[in-house]
Amino acid sequence: MWRYLKRVLIGKPLKTLDEGSQHLGKGKALALLSSDALSSVAYGTEQITTALLAAGSLALWLQLPIALLVLVLLGAITLSYRQIIHAYPSGGGAYMVTSKNWGKLPGLVAGGSLLVDYMLTVAVSVTSGTAAIISAVPSLHQYAIPIAVIIVLILMGINLRGVRESAGFLTIPVYAFIAMMTFMILYGLYNIVTGQVAYHATAAVGTSFKGLTLLLFMRAFSSGSSSLTGVEAISNAVPNFKEPKPRNAAGTLVLMSIILAFFFAGVTMLSYWYGIRPGGHTTVLAQIGTAVFGHGVLFYLLQIATAMILAVAANTGFSAFPQLAFNLAKDKFMPHIYLDKGDRLGYSNGIVSLAIGSIILIFIFHGSTEALIPLYAVGVFVPFTLSQSGMIIHWWREREGFWIGKAIINFVGAAISAVLVVTLFMLHFTGVWPYLIIMPVLLRIFLKVNKHYRIVAKQLKVISNEPIKRHHYEGSEVIILVSNLTRVTAEAVDYAKSIGDKVLALHVSFDSNPEREYRLGVEFKREFPDVRYVDVHTSYRSITVPALRFVDEIAKGAKERNRSLTVLIPQFIPHASWQNALHNQNSLRLRSALATRDVTVATYYFHLSE
Amino acid sequence: MWRYLKRVLIGKPLKTLDEGSQHLGKGKALALLSSDALSSVAYGTEQITTALLAAGSLALWLQLPIALLVLVLLGAITLSYRQIIHAYPSGGGAYMVTSKNWGKLPGLVAGGSLLVDYMLTVAVSVTSGTAAIISAVPSLHQYAIPIAVIIVLILMGINLRGVRESAGFLTIPVYAFIAMMTFMILYGLYNIVTGQVAYHATAAVGTSFKGLTLLLFMRAFSSGSSSLTGVEAISNAVPNFKEPKPRNAAGTLVLMSIILAFFFAGVTMLSYWYGIRPGGHTTVLAQIGTAVFGHGVLFYLLQIATAMILAVAANTGFSAFPQLAFNLAKDKFMPHIYLDKGDRLGYSNGIVSLAIGSIILIFIFHGSTEALIPLYAVGVFVPFTLSQSGMIIHWWREREGFWIGKAIINFVGAAISAVLVVTLFMLHFTGVWPYLIIMPVLLRIFLKVNKHYRIVAKQLKVISNEPIKRHHYEGSEVIILVSNLTRVTAEAVDYAKSIGDKVLALHVSFDSNPEREYRLGVEFKREFPDVRYVDVHTSYRSITVPALRFVDEIAKGAKERNRSLTVLIPQFIPHASWQNALHNQNSLRLRSALATRDVTVATYYFHLSE
Repeated sequence: MWRYLKRVLIGKPLKTLDEGSQHLGKGKALALLSSDALSSVAYGTEQITTALLAAGSLALWLQLPIALLVLVLLGAITLSYRQIIHAYPSGGGAYMVTSKNWGKLPGLVAGGSLLVDYMLTVAVSVTSGTAAIISAVPSLHQYAIPIAVIIVLILMGINLRGVRESAGFLTIPVYAFIAMMTFMILYGLYNIVTGQVAYHATAAVGTSFKGLTLLLFMRAFSSGSSSLTGVEAISNAVPNFKEPKPRNAAGTLVLMSIILAFFFAGVTMLSYWYGIRPGGHTTVLAQIGTAVFGHGVLFYLLQIATAMILAVAANTGFSAFPQLAFNLAKDKFMPHIYLDKGDRLGYSNGIVSLAIGSIILIFIFHGSTEALIPLYAVGVFVPFTLSQSGMIIHWWREREGFWIGKAIINFVGAAISAVLVVTLFMLHFTGVWPYLIIMPVLLRIFLKVNKHYRIVAKQLKVISNEPIKRHHYEGSEVIILVSNLTRVTAEAVDYAKSIGDKVLALHVSFDSNPEREYRLGVEFKREFPDVRYVDVHTSYRSITVPALRFVDEIAKGAKERNRSLTVLIPQFIPHASWQNALHNQNSLRLRSALATRDVTVATYYFHLSE
Repeated sequence: MWRYLKRVLIGKPLKTLDEGSQHLGKGKALALLSSDALSSVAYGTEQITTALLAAGSLALWLQLPIALLVLVLLGAITLSYRQIIHAYPSGGGAYMVTSKNWGKLPGLVAGGSLLVDYMLTVAVSVTSGTAAIISAVPSLHQYAIPIAVIIVLILMGINLRGVRESAGFLTIPVYAFIAMMTFMILYGLYNIVTGQVAYHATAAVGTSFKGLTLLLFMRAFSSGSSSLTGVEAISNAVPNFKEPKPRNAAGTLVLMSIILAFFFAGVTMLSYWYGIRPGGHTTVLAQIGTAVFGHGVLFYLLQIATAMILAVAANTGFSAFPQLAFNLAKDKFMPHIYLDKGDRLGYSNGIVSLAIGSIILIFIFHGSTEALIPLYAVGVFVPFTLSQSGMIIHWWREREGFWIGKAIINFVGAAISAVLVVTLFMLHFTGVWPYLIIMPVLLRIFLKVNKHYRIVAKQLKVISNEPIKRHHYEGSEVIILVSNLTRVTAEAVDYAKSIGDKVLALHVSFDSNPEREYRLGVEFKREFPDVRYVDVHTSYRSITVPALRFVDEIAKGAKERNRSLTVLIPQFIPHASWQNALHNQNSLRLRSALATRDVTVATYYFHLSE
């Protein structure tokens, strides 16, 4: 049943070597790697205006200088990542760059931050996509959380089936979004320039208002920095580009940054001009769309394109998280299961973990994009800071050519990121504090897992220079557990005699039916005179404890006599699997109890035919 | 951890023979066996008035004639059950009486109804007890469902620890309730007789009102019949009485019925006189209590006593359900697990099943007593009808003494019960329909389970007259599964050589690292020249399918050569159990796959020391 369902939902298993490798041209790469960054305009401006609105609508003009600063930051980060692309052409994820330059622990902080961050990428993109859907169809408002969860589950399903990152259909939403946004911004600006739209701004630039200006400014700026999430995607994917890889990747990065800058500037400008105020069940982007297009077809196309690119952006989490989990598992900081490829060659365990994690985040934060943003931003800017500052060390180690200039560029990127992290902790502490719990826990898990794997490897290791020590047993003994006298018992005894030169039958008897216990003993001895029958009596109703005690006794003797010991459990397997529920799970319990002992446990299976 | 928690919550295991047997005097028996019946006055009158209120408050006077009819019904049922007590002194549950007289299938209908009914006893008593608590503290209204669920869980915990049915402390709430109710009724009547309370009845007896009178009357009557639930408890428990058992039991039954009649008549009278109207968050009984006592200490004592006796009534479900499940399991209609006694000598599986079932019912019916009542009544009156009519057959078979008179009494009981069942289906179909789904499903399960056990017994049976056929194997072969070359592998090979005269090593190799696979083969052959090494290559990433195919091949050969075959899986056991999550569960998957084959599967355990 389960097998069949899995086959239908996930598809037929693929061979290991079916995994092809493909190389991306700039056009395709732009579409595939930029969805996360570009889609952030769907919530970036909104975060700034929401933060400003706390000081009243007179403060809204501040979005223009803040947007300018975000653009400066975007420029700095773009330059920094261009350098990472050239320095680590084999793909420079923050985990790798930080580990190489700063060392293990900072690397793990970067890796752990990114693991959480990818979960947040999925959660933020999906809740934001849900908000785009609700802006178009407000009556869906009350179903926000179920809609978001369903989208995550669909993405999980698609990724378990296996999406090649190169899947052509993923480029459509990205280009559709780029086209819709460009059209909206140009059309909106055209209306403004030709004077078809009156100036609606709630307050002219420079209007004074009450409130702590610098604090407010930093609050809004740090919220708006969430627009820069996803910029690092290209630097991780350099090996997937066509030759010359670093050059193509760097070009794509610059192109993406220009588009993002244009979108961000355009949206902020329109938002200011039209006097858009966030709130209600309609996103800022949807309000701008309504203002520019009215409530016609173009508006709905914009909402569809927005929701679609956000889904694609969430999907980037589904390719990045399992890959990072794989890298951490390869370095023995995460469980081995993240190394396994599923039937469809995706890292299924990583995909499922990510889906569960992001669904939990959606529930905790009640599907609110705004509540998720500060944590998301911290998760991004901590690894940004670490990898950019790591690059300074990298340049210092190399000290070639214009290394000081390069180091300065990375220093600017690192410094701005660091300031942002500090600002986020100071001004958004209510949204950011979980980071202070998650990170130490994750680090502890990483280190504990790592220690365990190292200890295990040491204990299992065969020293390869000397020949392995062999042991020769003088013979073998078998204890066969007998609960009653059936064909299963008989067959199991025959088998036991084939592997053991001494066979012992152990029966645990209870108080409930002494007459039956006595008769069993008599009959067993009559049928199997060649097997010693031992009846261990217990006053309780569990066979585990007395059986263990007896096995321990025999095991001691067998060791002294240098003979191997096998405990044989006869078990019948019903015809249909539901019927297992109708039989006592004693053998299961016994097996798990015996696993704690130094004996070999064998199960004799008897298959019922109907 | 789990073990420790279980020990704290459930207590230390008890020996089988610790189970004493005790015999109940009338006074204690009354307290222990009547809680279910007596507590039904907490919701019985309320059901009648609620049903009548549908036709407007002018119809409320009808509660008096309806109450009269319920009392007649109570008399008839009491007489019927007195006869069952004398006819089946070993305890005449409806399942047993119906099975003996009507046959297997009707017996199963009675048994299945009662299983559901005990779940409803718990659900109804607990939600009704919660209503009593909320009547005293209305602000708890929004927590009704959590409170009910917590009460069920506490009852489950107590019963897993093991309550002797005779536990003395259970008598306190019952006698407290009897005392409070008697006092309230007498005090209320005294007030009425002395004229201290004005006549508040909403309508005098005989007032005419709009509405289909007969339909309304029957609706209200069938709802009110829920007051009679629990009357059968004494007849099931005859063996627990002191000698002369049937006489003592019959006396207790009559005493209980008189008290119940007094309560029911008194409460209905007061409800009518004070013009009580159900609704809001206050139960009818609480409203009467307020009218009689005011909002003082006595009122709160009444609510506490009501809530407590309802908890004790729910507790009767916890002793009846596991016992009935045991009887059904003994007759092989339910899984064997219901035969097992837990550490504390209770039938743990029955207790847990009951708790889960009643919590599900509470959720489905949103913790509303009223919604649960019709289904509850059907679950009671179907077995009533079956067992009473079964008694007619019983008397006919015996045909001794006044058998015709006895048969007529049971006929009256059966007839009234049958009319009630029909009425419930006709007039309360919206609350009763689940019965029509649950019952066929239960019957199908009973019969399927029964068939399975019979088939299994047949296949396992050793014909006791002829000696068991023995089989002698010519030798034994072992396949040892090898994934890498460690100390575990080496020890497992040594063990394999002790039980098999031919040992084969099977390695499944993947595409991902061909060089490693090659090196493993070379090293293994060098270290173990005495073991044949077979490398099976797979293009997928699961070892199960290729391993199974190989084992099948070898198994065929071994059978032809008349040799036993063992598949040996080396497995290391980490020091702490959480560490299991860090290792591939391949051996688990392999074992469950191999269980489908005719081979013996042995596990060689290697215990890591740290």
